[in-house]
Order: sequence, then structure tokens, then C-alpha cells
Amino acid sequence: MQDKLNLMIPGPTPVPENVLSSMSKHPIGHRSGDFQKIVQKTTEQLKWLHQTTADVLTITGSGTAAMEAGIINTLSKGDQVICGDNGKFGERWVKVARAYGLDVKVVKADWGTPLDPNQFKRILEEDTNEKIKAVILTHSETSTGVINDLKSINNEVKNHSKAITIADCVTSLGACNIPMDEWGIDVIASGSQKGYMIPPGLSFVAMSKRAWEANNQSNLPKFYLDLKQYLKTVNQNSNPFTPAINLYFALEASLTMMQKEGLNNIFARHARHQKATQEGIKAMGLNLFTKENFGSPAITAVKPENIDAESIRKAIKNDFDILLAGGQDHLKGKIFRIGHLGFVNNRDIISVISALESTLDKMGKLNVPTGQGIAKTISVLNNE
Amino acid sequence: MQDKLNLMIPGPTPVPENVLSSMSKHPIGHRSGDFQKIVQKTTEQLKWLHQTTADVLTITGSGTAAMEAGIINTLSKGDQVICGDNGKFGERWVKVARAYGLDVKVVKADWGTPLDPNQFKRILEEDTNEKIKAVILTHSETSTGVINDLKSINNEVKNHSKAITIADCVTSLGACNIPMDEWGIDVIASGSQKGYMIPPGLSFVAMSKRAWEANNQSNLPKFYLDLKQYLKTVNQNSNPFTPAINLYFALEASLTMMQKEGLNNIFARHARHQKATQEGIKAMGLNLFTKENFGSPAITAVKPENIDAESIRKAIKNDFDILLAGGQDHLKGKIFRIGHLGFVNNRDIISVISALESTLDKMGKLNVPTGQGIAKTISVLNNE
Repeated sequence: MQDKLNLMIPGPTPVPENVLSSMSKHPIGHRSGDFQKIVQKTTEQLKWLHQTTADVLTITGSGTAAMEAGIINTLSKGDQVICGDNGKFGERWVKVARAYGLDVKVVKADWGTPLDPNQFKRILEEDTNEKIKAVILTHSETSTGVINDLKSINNEVKNHSKAITIADCVTSLGACNIPMDEWGIDVIASGSQKGYMIPPGLSFVAMSKRAWEANNQSNLPKFYLDLKQYLKTVNQNSNPFTPAINLYFALEASLTMMQKEGLNNIFARHARHQKATQEGIKAMGLNLFTKENFGSPAITAVKPENIDAESIRKAIKNDFDILLAGGQDHLKGKIFRIGHLGFVNNRDIISVISALESTLDKMGKLNVPTGQGIAKTISVLNNE
Repeated sequence: MQDKLNLMIPGPTPVPENVLSSMSKHPIGHRSGDFQKIVQKTTEQLKWLHQTTADVLTITGSGTAAMEAGIINTLSKGDQVICGDNGKFGERWVKVARAYGLDVKVVKADWGTPLDPNQFKRILEEDTNEKIKAVILTHSETSTGVINDLKSINNEVKNHSKAITIADCVTSLGACNIPMDEWGIDVIASGSQKGYMIPPGLSFVAMSKRAWEANNQSNLPKFYLDLKQYLKTVNQNSNPFTPAINLYFALEASLTMMQKEGLNNIFARHARHQKATQEGIKAMGLNLFTKENFGSPAITAVKPENIDAESIRKAIKNDFDILLAGGQDHLKGKIFRIGHLGFVNNRDIISVISALESTLDKMGKLNVPTGQGIAKTISVLNNE
């Protein structure tokens, strides 16, 4: 039905009405006192979200711009780095690092499987001359629905090296607990169209004191993504370049909603929805693609046996106006992915599980009694 | 008065109501067929605006991102370039070029004065070994209200060199005639919060065939601003990274309005408003800052004698809810700037001229009979 589509993809995520309407205001001058108040307030709110006293900088651009900024502002040509790669975004950070002439050691895991902290440990232990300057990894690998063990990997980094940790938290920040200061993560990159519940166009880089120390040595060329310029201006509640003013209106509105809900409630909601989705899927006889206990709080990947995943996805879009994500690259047609990130409630979860059951039933592919999936989902929602 | 401010700064410019409301829609998936239709349509519309058959690529970022992309995608480390510098934006492109290790020859003119095409000619004539790879300049220098003679400078480039011309048309595109193909400009950068009449957050790079040939030689590192990725995806009506979807809604709405008005009518409107503003200013005894006949169609800079320019600007904001721009750097307090770019009508022009006359009258600084300025403005509006 026209204009009735519910996005259950890993981004853009659904946007609350008051956030949408905040964007339809006339822009104000980006050098005005009124705008400085918004920059000041949202910067404080971003620190709250990152659980940090570090600097959190706002870039007009996609999450990739933020992640690239984190890498090119802390490293120099020829620097050795480790990149974790177990999906499309891991692959991307390898490409970024190589585009800038970094010497990349890749730690791989199969798509659907988490990165192994011990592999990082071994490489770092062998690096007795401390040549490795950074460990770069994706926390929630959106392409496969895997959450990597950022805390453990970062512990290995801290225990065996002076390298900094640069984490893509694009689909984990605002979905699960990432206490930046407590864990000691040096750089966190994120994007607006995810847990932030606002449309795409803003991205964020949090930079620890150690990240700024690394920045002093960094010689990679940059201008638009030169974080020193963002630091200088954020301290004056401003931006180095004209920012996406109307998306700032949205950011203020959404972070205010998030503060009202509270971090722990937000994390508990995502955990409940993740479990309710996973259990419903399993109870209707479908397989999860992602290794047990490493499912992302943002997205659940499903690998139906003997059914084209795209046909399920298309039927759910046509019959129920729910948009799911397909598989990427070699997983195209093999998996579909259910986003439960950001502005998602219990209704979204029961409707997607029911829609999936109905679709399989219609296809004659449901091998359990109709209702068994949703029954399990309801049970999780009522008891978690 | 709350929420009654009229922006007459060189950006962000006023946004039409239907463009504002287009942004408050729920985002759609950026890989969906519906979004592909928007990319396809706006790409065609962008070509119309640039009067070109070249590729016009849309980046989520500020105008600086687009200009940087134009530079780093066509040049290599150590390349010799000429940068025109007669204001804050000219200065910025020198900084960008140097940040990437280019060998920059700067052609300067005083702030308020246009760049001299003959200076470009002389340097290019002396470059018998054709070492100079690009000429980089700002068309409308927002900081001073000067329009540089892009057509003549580009003719010198074409007549005396194989260098490409990279033009910052951020505040000239959509304000005056820039026939990219007819003039043979190689790279044009622009930004959404200007003549486009939409909020900031999108920027645009038009790349000629010669610019793509230069791109094949370019070795500067880049990823987010790697235009090859944008070219590849725009040919599939898509983007390499998640774009600012809601700003695309705005872009489609505004370009559709612009096509309805027609390029020649848009240019004539800007020329009329520019002249009506300039003549009104002069008729009330104030001096224009910018050299005669080199005023930008986007902005008029005024240099009041013996009056603090900031005090005039503040009074006009307080008493009339009209926001003007101040002077930058050494011009702070010495000039103020009246934006007449984008969604501006005759009412905006008569109100700013009347407000200025009223303010000078109240300050006891009006040295001609009250009404003489607006009389001249009205005469221009009625006769142009």
C-alpha cells in the first residue's frame, strides 16, 4: 500500500514523527547563536550516548566518511594495521586502509562467524617491535548479522600492544552497551540512520586522548575529513564546514527521545527484540545464518533451506509492506535479514514474525503448525 | 519575532515550503526501486542545471567536500596547479591543494577585486613544458561578493594549456549562466544550500570527459570522495554509500520548481535583484565594497563609511528579522553582505533595502532624504 512501508532493514531505520517534523523547519544560520546551542547540546548528548568524556565530532557524510576519518586522522603512510574482516564492512575498511597506503594484516573469519580474539592476540604478541599502530574492526557486521567481541579484542590490544583500536559501531551504537571509556576504545565511528533514529546524512567520530596523540603523528592527506578542524570548531560549538542543519534538528530531537528512554532501557529493548526474533525464526523451522550467541542486536540474518530467500523477502514486501534486507554478494538469494534497530517496538516484531509465518504457509514451505513461530516470539516478549 | 527570521545570507538560503515538507517524509530504502527513480530523475535535472551532458555526481557532504573531490580525483602528488585567490574560498582551495602535496602557484587579487585573466594567461604562456595540470578558482567569491570572470579565465586556460579548469560554482550555479559544455569547464562543484534552495548536506561535482581522462592519471589517496565509485553507481541510479535520502526528496522537489521557472527566468531574476540591491544601496549614499561590474548575482557586499557594519547588521536582525552576513577575517565590522540567492523574490529585496534605510535613519547616519534608496530599488524592479 502506498506510503505504508515499514523499514526493517539495517538502515535507514524508521524515524519517529517528531523527528521527521523537526526537519521540515526553515534552516537557521549555521554561525548563529541558536545553532551553536544545538551543537553544544547535541555534543553533550553524543558523549552521553558514547558513555565517554572524549570528543565526539559530527561530520556531514555517511558512516563510511566517519570511519575513514577515524583511520586517516590517526595513521601515516606505511603504518602496519590489523583489519578484522568477516563481512562486507570489514572488507570495506581493508580497502580504505589500502587506499591510503597502510600495510594491512587481515584477520578473517567466514561470513556469519565472529572474529576470533585469539587471532588478534597472536599477531600482537608476535609484534615485539610494536610496529602495529592500529586494530580496525567492525563491531556489528551488518552484512551477516554478526556481533564481533569488541570488548575482548580490545582487551587483547590493550594487553599486548600500544596500538589504538578503531571500531565501526555504525549498527551497534545505541543498540547495545558500548562504554567507550570503561572499555578503553580509542575511536568509535557511527552514522545517523541507525540507532540514532534519524535519516542518513550525519556521521560521528569519537576520539579518545590516545587517538588525538596518534593524530599528532598522522601524515595522511585530508581536508574535509581533517578532524583537527572539527575539534577546533566543536570547542566553539560550531562546524568547520556548512553542516546538514536540518539533520541537526533531527539529531537533537532523537537524542532527547533516547535520553528520556534511558540507555539501559534502549539496550534491553534491543536485546528483547533480538531474542524474540531469533526464537520465533527457529520455532518456525528456519535456520539462523549467524553463529549461535553472536547475533547482532541490530539485525537477524536468516538462511532458509531449499527456498530462495529473495522470494520470501519479496512476498513479505508485497503482502505486508514490510521491507527486509537481502543477502549481499555471494549471499544474494541465500539469506534475508530482519532489521530490529532503532525506533522499533513489539508490534514491529510480532508483525514481521507473523508475516514470515504466513508467507511460508502460503508457499507450502512451513514444516511446523502455523502459529508456532509467533507463539515463541510472544513468549519471549512477555517474559524477557 | 520567534520563527520569523528571513535568511539573506549567502547560505543556507530560504527553502520553499513544499521542499521543506518533502523532507519530513519517512526515508525509503536507498537500494529500492523507488529511490533509484529519484536518483535517475535528479541526475537528469542536475545535467539540465549544469547545461551539460557530462556526469554530475551527488555527494553527501558540504560544498567543500565536492570541491576537494574535484581536485583530488584529477590530480597527483607534486602536480603543478594555479589557484586563484581573492577571498576566503580562494584561500581554502589553496589549503586543500597544499594539504595533498600539490605544487601551487597562487594568482592573487585584493579582496573585493576580481582575478585578472591576464595573470593566468602569462603564467600559462610561460609554462612551455606544460607542467601545469589544473587551474582552480572560485567563480562567485562569497566572502567579498565578487564574481570572477570564469569564462575569460577558462578561455586563457584552453588557449594556452592542456590544464583542466576546476571551478567552485557553489554560489553562482543557479544564479547566473554557466553553460558547462559551451564554455568547456572541466569540473564544477556546487552545494545544496545555495541556488538549489534546499538545506545543506548535499553537494555536487560535474566531471567532463577531460576531467575523467585526468582522473585516470590521478594518484591521490581517497575513498569516501573517490568519484570513480560515484560514477559506477550513478550509472545504476544509485550511490556508493548511504546518501542523505531526505535531502534527495528536497532536491527532487526544488529542481522540479527550478525547471518550471526556467533557467533564463532564474538568471534574469537574480540579475534584477542584484541590480535593484546595488542601486538602492548607492542611492542611499552607501558604498559597495565590490569593484564595479564584478558584483556576484548571489550576494552584495556593502562597506559603510564611519559606521560599524556589525551594528547595522544587528539592528536589521533585531528590528526586522532579516539576517544579513557580516564580514570575515580582516573585513569583520567593516562590511556586511546581503544575500539574494535562491528562493528570493521582489518582496525580499524591497524589505531589506527599506530596513537598511530605516536603520540608517534611526542611527542618524542617512545623508540623503529617507526613501531615496528604496525609490531607486523600486525603479529598477519596475523597469528591468
